[in-house]
Amino acid sequence: MIRLHLDANATEPLRPEARAAVLAALDVSGNPSSVHAAGRAARRLLEDARERLAGLAGLSPATVVFTSGGTEANATALAGLRAEGRRMLAGATEHDSVLRAAPEAERIPVDRDGVIDLGALEAALAGDARPAAVAVMLANNETGTLQPVAAVAALCRRFRARLHVDAVQAPGRLPLGDLGALGADTLALSAHKAGGPKGAGALLLASGWWPGPLIRGGGQERGMRAGTEPLPAIAGFAAAAAAAEAWRAAGGAARLAALRDAILAGLAERVPRAVPLALGAARLPNTLALALPGVPAATQVMALDLAGVEVSAGAACSSGKVAESHVLRAMGLGPLAGCAIRVSLPWDAPDDAPARFLAAYAAMAARLARTVEPAPA
Amino acid sequence: MIRLHLDANATEPLRPEARAAVLAALDVSGNPSSVHAAGRAARRLLEDARERLAGLAGLSPATVVFTSGGTEANATALAGLRAEGRRMLAGATEHDSVLRAAPEAERIPVDRDGVIDLGALEAALAGDARPAAVAVMLANNETGTLQPVAAVAALCRRFRARLHVDAVQAPGRLPLGDLGALGADTLALSAHKAGGPKGAGALLLASGWWPGPLIRGGGQERGMRAGTEPLPAIAGFAAAAAAAEAWRAAGGAARLAALRDAILAGLAERVPRAVPLALGAARLPNTLALALPGVPAATQVMALDLAGVEVSAGAACSSGKVAESHVLRAMGLGPLAGCAIRVSLPWDAPDDAPARFLAAYAAMAARLARTVEPAPA
Repeated sequence: MIRLHLDANATEPLRPEARAAVLAALDVSGNPSSVHAAGRAARRLLEDARERLAGLAGLSPATVVFTSGGTEANATALAGLRAEGRRMLAGATEHDSVLRAAPEAERIPVDRDGVIDLGALEAALAGDARPAAVAVMLANNETGTLQPVAAVAALCRRFRARLHVDAVQAPGRLPLGDLGALGADTLALSAHKAGGPKGAGALLLASGWWPGPLIRGGGQERGMRAGTEPLPAIAGFAAAAAAAEAWRAAGGAARLAALRDAILAGLAERVPRAVPLALGAARLPNTLALALPGVPAATQVMALDLAGVEVSAGAACSSGKVAESHVLRAMGLGPLAGCAIRVSLPWDAPDDAPARFLAAYAAMAARLARTVEPAPA
Repeated sequence: MIRLHLDANATEPLRPEARAAVLAALDVSGNPSSVHAAGRAARRLLEDARERLAGLAGLSPATVVFTSGGTEANATALAGLRAEGRRMLAGATEHDSVLRAAPEAERIPVDRDGVIDLGALEAALAGDARPAAVAVMLANNETGTLQPVAAVAALCRRFRARLHVDAVQAPGRLPLGDLGALGADTLALSAHKAGGPKGAGALLLASGWWPGPLIRGGGQERGMRAGTEPLPAIAGFAAAAAAAEAWRAAGGAARLAALRDAILAGLAERVPRAVPLALGAARLPNTLALALPGVPAATQVMALDLAGVEVSAGAACSSGKVAESHVLRAMGLGPLAGCAIRVSLPWDAPDDAPARFLAAYAAMAARLARTVEPAPA
């Protein structure tokens, strides 16, 4: 059985360009902080990756701070904002790496499609004279919902608040060249969400504000992040981001959106009781959150996995072992929040992905409907 | 010109076993936190690496927390110790990633060989009833000096102080199987110092004490370290550590010690004014710190680099641009502290390394002696 990977928002398959860059970097043996020739070669590789990534985002190389991943990038930004003594505000559907890095943050509500309530954000900013910091993601990992970041940035400017944007779901799905102009102070990216290897990320210091290091020690990354840089992963990251952007611009993302829409159309016909979520919002092209009323999400994930289809649970439902998705809960979906899976198409999704997913999903829905909602005897 | 890499303490050349493990891990596309088959395959790779590393250190897999590197491992331990409100004590020659993670730490002096003053440590522990935490490294990166960690651990037990040991220079040089029994609460390791790739490290929780996460978010590493694990680097790390330990036990380290001793013997004959440092201490087999009175370390490093020999400066001497080595200064070496380089032999050092190093060093010393100390006219 050839398995069908539809969990790209957890991790994109490695792009061949990234693999080649990792291999080449493995053969560069120096430490980028060493002054001798081997060190300088490693440094050159690092700075090439920095220039490449910065160029993609429309920023200067000096704004790129490499980290171990998106989580560390978020943590660094949030720690810096807290260190300024700012009042913290965060969208209710932010990733755990944002919410747990600033547990005191006031959560700004979202609507039923997961879009942040700009009125509530404005009221929160207006209601307290202390300098604030806002964390709003560009695109949600569970639903694909895009946030109105430009409007959020305008509010932040008006109230002199800083803005951090978790943009880890952007590469390959949204134009990277827009990132630098979003109006954010800082943005987080992750290599493996872009088709690069696990183990690198970046914090983009788009406004010139420097949050200060989370990890101290050596003077790497201009004092912003101590520790020998993960050079193979960084080289793979830059190569992946460049490949993802070129692929997106050449129609790759539009193809995924068409595959996703084929799934949606098929569902309406074959499993009409399935409830696609966040359809009212602008969304990532590759992502579809899908509830099956009455069937715990974890059960769906396991059933599909047995059928060779890999998706994830937005929530682990009512078992009590894992908390219900805070994202879907914040969207006010009630019991549906525990019954939703995330289908996220990878860059290399096959043309028959909709047909194969629909077959597995319809079979699963038919079988589990009998279990969960027994037919009358 | 085939270059001679003698800067292993900055980064060891990648071991072929590590390279193969990285390549294999790049092809495992899942996220270890995903529950479907691809996720479980990634999880298996992660747990295999954990078991392998734990086994090498004589510890149980549950004690291994993977990080992005040695710096983050040190930072996590130190942050946890500070969070307990402990009085912090650190050896004066600890790595910057320890000293900058606990800037308030009282520095325990070392002798002229860089060995910690156990009497001073005991007095510091006895002189204040507050619970203390001690950070002492296993082996110094600049001099190779081994610290009497067992004696330090005994003092810590007596005064109920916690002990963190930076052991990043150990793999391939010292028996890894001893690490778990050193008496430390926590130990830091780094992949690339073991011949693995840059981008992974580990904090070993040898005593069962958990310092709590430095980076929060997802529940990875049992809640001890959020963020998708750098799987390729972790797989390479475990493979490198295993290969390094097998190589060491089979005589690899002894061979490096013989090469180092050949350098020492040759120096006494060819450059008698060179001053080897820390000769009175037990040392790493591969490391030699070497002062050339009157010649700034940075000048030596550059001259040797031009001759194709890669070493590092323990200090950047008197230029003022880079601070003098705090390690050599703590050893009370006076002006010599600014004139010392570090020669650290990698696992793949060639047999002719002593001859080639000696030729380059003698030529450099002769030339620079004329520059720095002009002969009488």
